[in-house]
Amino acid sequence: MEKIPYSDFEKLDLRVGKILSVEDHPKADKLYILKVDLGEESPRQILAGLKPFYKKDELLDKKAIFIANLEPRIIRGLESNGMILAAGIDTKVVFLTTEKDIEVGSKIK
Amino acid sequence: MEKIPYSDFEKLDLRVGKILSVEDHPKADKLYILKVDLGEESPRQILAGLKPFYKKDELLDKKAIFIANLEPRIIRGLESNGMILAAGIDTKVVFLTTEKDIEVGSKIK
Repeated sequence: MEKIPYSDFEKLDLRVGKILSVEDHPKADKLYILKVDLGEESPRQILAGLKPFYKKDELLDKKAIFIANLEPRIIRGLESNGMILAAGIDTKVVFLTTEKDIEVGSKIK
Repeated sequence: MEKIPYSDFEKLDLRVGKILSVEDHPKADKLYILKVDLGEESPRQILAGLKPFYKKDELLDKKAIFIANLEPRIIRGLESNGMILAAGIDTKVVFLTTEKDIEVGSKIK
């Protein structure tokens, strides 16, 4: 991939968030609807394609890493206002988190 | 922060890497010199400002998340060819990792 300046990374608002609820997307087999506390006034609705890889209770109340400033997208009728980060290889997918616990809203740098 | 399109995220080559060695930067009190396996032919040298937060053996052999395509930078005479991601708030800093173990070189998406 092309080399990028640090300023390209700084455009991303990456933050620690806590998953407050996990529901099925009614119109997409692989998607969950997450409500996520990103340290803001209200939780965000973020859609995540993690259903083939995680049960709901494996996500609930967990802290993970999110892109907080992605343009909102509508996926099969529901708005996603951010994205959860996950590592993937072949058919395996695991979400990112922090090595030790840290406050919701902490910035990634 | 400004909203960004998904294509801005796609410019970043974020990967799981394993820290193979940790040494002190001879000319910078807060920096470690890491050798990191990012799933390539040779390990990368990556400088990390984690010395105030981690002892060497807390980093050695650990898997963490790296930006693999940052333009190389010289920091006090030594080249850094990538960056480790960490979450920070106030004076606390913790590095990012994956919720379950996954292969070195796995891409973040």
